[in-house]
Amino acid sequence: MVIILHPGTDKDTAERVIDKVKKLGFTPHPIYGVINTVIAVIGDRTQEAMEALEAMPGVDRVVPILRPYKLAGREVKPEKSVITLPNGVEMGGRTVGVIAGPCAVESREQFLETAGYVKQAGAQVLRGFIYKARTSPHDFQGVRDEGIQLLREARELTGMPLITEILDTRDVEKLHDVVDLFQIGARNMQNYALLTEVGLSDRPVVLKRGLSATIDDLLKAAEYILVGGNQQVMLCERGIRTFETQTRNTLDISAVPVLQRYTHLPVLVDPSHAGGHDWLVPALSKAAIAAGADGLIIETHPDPEHAMVDGAQSLTPEGFKELMGQLPAFAYAAGRTM
Amino acid sequence: MVIILHPGTDKDTAERVIDKVKKLGFTPHPIYGVINTVIAVIGDRTQEAMEALEAMPGVDRVVPILRPYKLAGREVKPEKSVITLPNGVEMGGRTVGVIAGPCAVESREQFLETAGYVKQAGAQVLRGFIYKARTSPHDFQGVRDEGIQLLREARELTGMPLITEILDTRDVEKLHDVVDLFQIGARNMQNYALLTEVGLSDRPVVLKRGLSATIDDLLKAAEYILVGGNQQVMLCERGIRTFETQTRNTLDISAVPVLQRYTHLPVLVDPSHAGGHDWLVPALSKAAIAAGADGLIIETHPDPEHAMVDGAQSLTPEGFKELMGQLPAFAYAAGRTM
Amino acid sequence: MVIILHPGTDKDTAERVIDKVKKLGFTPHPIYGVINTVIAVIGDRTQEAMEALEAMPGVDRVVPILRPYKLAGREVKPEKSVITLPNGVEMGGRTVGVIAGPCAVESREQFLETAGYVKQAGAQVLRGFIYKARTSPHDFQGVRDEGIQLLREARELTGMPLITEILDTRDVEKLHDVVDLFQIGARNMQNYALLTEVGLSDRPVVLKRGLSATIDDLLKAAEYILVGGNQQVMLCERGIRTFETQTRNTLDISAVPVLQRYTHLPVLVDPSHAGGHDWLVPALSKAAIAAGADGLIIETHPDPEHAMVDGAQSLTPEGFKELMGQLPAFAYAAGRTM
Amino acid sequence: MVIILHPGTDKDTAERVIDKVKKLGFTPHPIYGVINTVIAVIGDRTQEAMEALEAMPGVDRVVPILRPYKLAGREVKPEKSVITLPNGVEMGGRTVGVIAGPCAVESREQFLETAGYVKQAGAQVLRGFIYKARTSPHDFQGVRDEGIQLLREARELTGMPLITEILDTRDVEKLHDVVDLFQIGARNMQNYALLTEVGLSDRPVVLKRGLSATIDDLLKAAEYILVGGNQQVMLCERGIRTFETQTRNTLDISAVPVLQRYTHLPVLVDPSHAGGHDWLVPALSKAAIAAGADGLIIETHPDPEHAMVDGAQSLTPEGFKELMGQLPAFAYAAGRTM
Repeated sequence: MVIILHPGTDKDTAERVIDKVKKLGFTPHPIYGVINTVIAVIGDRTQEAMEALEAMPGVDRVVPILRPYKLAGREVKPEKSVITLPNGVEMGGRTVGVIAGPCAVESREQFLETAGYVKQAGAQVLRGFIYKARTSPHDFQGVRDEGIQLLREARELTGMPLITEILDTRDVEKLHDVVDLFQIGARNMQNYALLTEVGLSDRPVVLKRGLSATIDDLLKAAEYILVGGNQQVMLCERGIRTFETQTRNTLDISAVPVLQRYTHLPVLVDPSHAGGHDWLVPALSKAAIAAGADGLIIETHPDPEHAMVDGAQSLTPEGFKELMGQLPAFAYAAGRTM
Repeated sequence: MVIILHPGTDKDTAERVIDKVKKLGFTPHPIYGVINTVIAVIGDRTQEAMEALEAMPGVDRVVPILRPYKLAGREVKPEKSVITLPNGVEMGGRTVGVIAGPCAVESREQFLETAGYVKQAGAQVLRGFIYKARTSPHDFQGVRDEGIQLLREARELTGMPLITEILDTRDVEKLHDVVDLFQIGARNMQNYALLTEVGLSDRPVVLKRGLSATIDDLLKAAEYILVGGNQQVMLCERGIRTFETQTRNTLDISAVPVLQRYTHLPVLVDPSHAGGHDWLVPALSKAAIAAGADGLIIETHPDPEHAMVDGAQSLTPEGFKELMGQLPAFAYAAGRTM
Repeated sequence: MVIILHPGTDKDTAERVIDKVKKLGFTPHPIYGVINTVIAVIGDRTQEAMEALEAMPGVDRVVPILRPYKLAGREVKPEKSVITLPNGVEMGGRTVGVIAGPCAVESREQFLETAGYVKQAGAQVLRGFIYKARTSPHDFQGVRDEGIQLLREARELTGMPLITEILDTRDVEKLHDVVDLFQIGARNMQNYALLTEVGLSDRPVVLKRGLSATIDDLLKAAEYILVGGNQQVMLCERGIRTFETQTRNTLDISAVPVLQRYTHLPVLVDPSHAGGHDWLVPALSKAAIAAGADGLIIETHPDPEHAMVDGAQSLTPEGFKELMGQLPAFAYAAGRTM
Repeated sequence: MVIILHPGTDKDTAERVIDKVKKLGFTPHPIYGVINTVIAVIGDRTQEAMEALEAMPGVDRVVPILRPYKLAGREVKPEKSVITLPNGVEMGGRTVGVIAGPCAVESREQFLETAGYVKQAGAQVLRGFIYKARTSPHDFQGVRDEGIQLLREARELTGMPLITEILDTRDVEKLHDVVDLFQIGARNMQNYALLTEVGLSDRPVVLKRGLSATIDDLLKAAEYILVGGNQQVMLCERGIRTFETQTRNTLDISAVPVLQRYTHLPVLVDPSHAGGHDWLVPALSKAAIAAGADGLIIETHPDPEHAMVDGAQSLTPEGFKELMGQLPAFAYAAGRTM
């Protein structure tokens, strides 16, 4: 880390900071300038050490040097992580993968119909959410435990790996044998109890970026899972909150190349939640692949007008099939297969 | 709600939307303009109805009319809610209340010393956090269960009501008899499983606004607690995430009068997390009271330089006492006592 | 517009609002609900009328219905505007156009060398900025008027249309015969005096989106130019300001399909300023084309390490050529040529 | 500055960066860690040097040490700047000053009536805007040059110093003898041509913070004026753009203590534009004074319902007088007079 002192800090105050650095077990390298004094510190930083130093008189700022993700970073593992799903599909490999399904499981008919056309159109993973994280308690909360049997049925029928969102630490055990992948949604990205729990699981996890989480926060949240031993983590950019109101969120497309540079974990994009309108999904899906995403999560519904959640951003079966036909050209241009 | 159709939408498409409104059980009032058609809808909206209509061809936007917080809103309960703590202190009444303590419980000495001077300086509630929600798993996570006994001791010794942050649904039962108030932190504001769990508890809850939560989101999160039966909810503004980097977060001071207008729940401000620097705490505390806050949450530490968490934003014992001496003048100016 | 009254507004207050609507020359359609009253208003809104109504007692909100861009909107001109440059190149047509050059003109050697390889690699327009809008007055402000002769020379030598940024109303006349296109930069997007001045010019204008401008603001700024008679306006997304710090700005990729839907004006993307790092430019350029952009503005420098401005985001000559070779595959996938 | 190299950068690459530092005229202090190399650089930084180094292979980031505002900073001038207006009123001194008036000059009656009650209620400066910076060209643009005579009349009649907003470099000369202070609005905060022009004037300038300008940007914009020789600059916080929609903008109250710490220039707050609703103005005004603001800019109109601009945020004459009666208690609490 680098400690920057206030202009005009006297020598005694500076000495106290230097002593503190030593006490914390680091080697200080003070550099005295005409206006400012700077103390470079060799040794791995910890958040505590940085905060302790920041609290000292004379200290203006403490600048971290090392990126703080020890397990998610490319420094520890330069080659890309590839996650192999039960059906042999690889996420993070050469092929761009597609996770698709309705926003929420509503009924047997709706879910099985979707599973059918989603598989036929070439999606690799089926999305089936039975607990819905809704902003208001007065909104539809999902079919909840009543949907568990239905998930089993769809999984058997299609042979597709199934992903569901979990909201409670107690869901991890309950759904372990029902689904193949867990999703931790944007609102729970910093639900550390939940992250810790899935970190102990052997199920792959899709971790979505929080609405106001920086890329750094997302990687640190992933650390919570990795540190528990679960290495099968995929990150998903799904739009951040900005002042723009024409779209539900602002898809941070740059997060794709930034994440590809700094982490070995596969990077997905959810164009449906990012845009919030069905007519935006094709453009954002294509952009995501062009920017280097390893996969997409797309919402589709047999009858969006009658969807119980997020109908406005769900593709019709026709819309989904059409998009699935257009995407390969972009994947090829990006040097991928699909 | 008001449904706005795209300019030039033909009559048949408009008719389909009107039919749908009827099917959903509402009364449509279509108004045909030269360019746009608008359909006003009488009847209480639901999120599902709005989303279903938004997904229809021809529909440009659906604008909600009623504010969606049924239990937190002033419409249902015009008079202010006052929450009485075990020591008789009222939050939301005429007196501005102060919750104070260290960011984290570190040791017996540190915590009891803080409890002592915090009480003497006039704080009403003691802050004692044993589980810390940290951005990185490599950072100090709190003394955790080992701190439980210490919380009991401090509570008995000082006779002050004690507040602690909970991170897991399983904490609610475990800590019920140990503390007087629960805090749900910013990162868990939309952890609906946790909100639901404290909604079934009889302990007052301080709910902090998420970093990117709108005021509307905060009120909807409060609904999750209220709907369970727990009416003792206090809201806390603690800074939102913006592009400004000179402060840790941006204190949204306007949230105070906005919340006071729309909800009957008490409104607190946390100037420590909002600013992130000890030297900002006094100005922000005074501003909060001037803007009409019902209380403050302030971090203080016997020795901020040696604090394990957030030392840079913790007031020294002297700083805390000095501030507590300055605040009453602002409270009086605002027509409050302190 | 739709006027939403506060819950519980009495009839007299509602009547006063209705009267006011009539006085403003509109037809009111009041709809009385159990809780709220809503007044739908037929007739073209003006900002003044909306503000006047919003200021009345009893009024909670006024929701506009018509989009307020009368000249930029697809409603007035459904077909796409194509702008033909002096060399016959069309912006907004089937071909994706590229504007390229250094961030700043520094010297004769640097500028002519860049012009040479930029043309050879297939760019259609040469970027040559002699006035630099810099955040600090202590930074390099461009070669300024001394560069005028150099612009003429490069334009003659290469035969390429030349674009330069103008900062002052007095620049419009001064540079009219020197360049082919004007750029109005992000910081001047709401410099209405400047917009008005270029609105009277016959030169095409590239208008960049401000750092915190909504898409709506950008379209309204374009109206200032269009209303003066100049129809040759291109819009450029170049990143907005968010809390994310890994990139210079956050490229709002969704702005491309949103603008393509609502306006007939050509839509460009500047991946260099959006990302702020050379290694991000390829991914963002490809994403922009995949999302439907009509053109790109790319910074390149013969020797980025010695660039006086923005070297970190400038492509080397090799990097630029390589990228120009990769882009056509994405253009074809998007149904465009290049 | 401190240059942080990528982990694993080889020695040759590091040497090239060190050589470059020397060529730029600085003294490099390389510190070699196990993972990262850091190069501390003594000597005053320039933006160009930083950008040149950032563009080099091996460089991850360049961190500035010195704050870049040479003339606005407390380092150069530790004591507060006090600006004395023609009527002897001091801005930046012990007294909290109030600038008040309508958002726009509309007519002789409206303006003179406002001037009358504003003076009587104790405001020190009269706000009279004749050119309005409006988001859309179809909105009311102000009475423009026809208002000049009216400004003269109000100034003579009341004896109050008068402030007006200027939008064009050509306005500086035109209005020099008509008004006492110039305002540069939020949208023009980075209109460098305009900043440069008022920098050559002898009129005090109120510079408003842009909607997405950081505090740092604001101070750098002030440098443009100071560098021209005009030292009479006041800064005004007026709300920044965030995702929150309940208020027009988000008042960044922390900007007040941050600016008071880093600059000697007087700091004002505009609660009217920040909040956008008349009912928010009192709370925000009080908070601003409590946080340490040197003055306020408040909008008021004899008849807000009939205001041509921003009626919803304008106080009535009664509202204004009432607020002026409440503010002194907060000023006294803050150790100021009023």
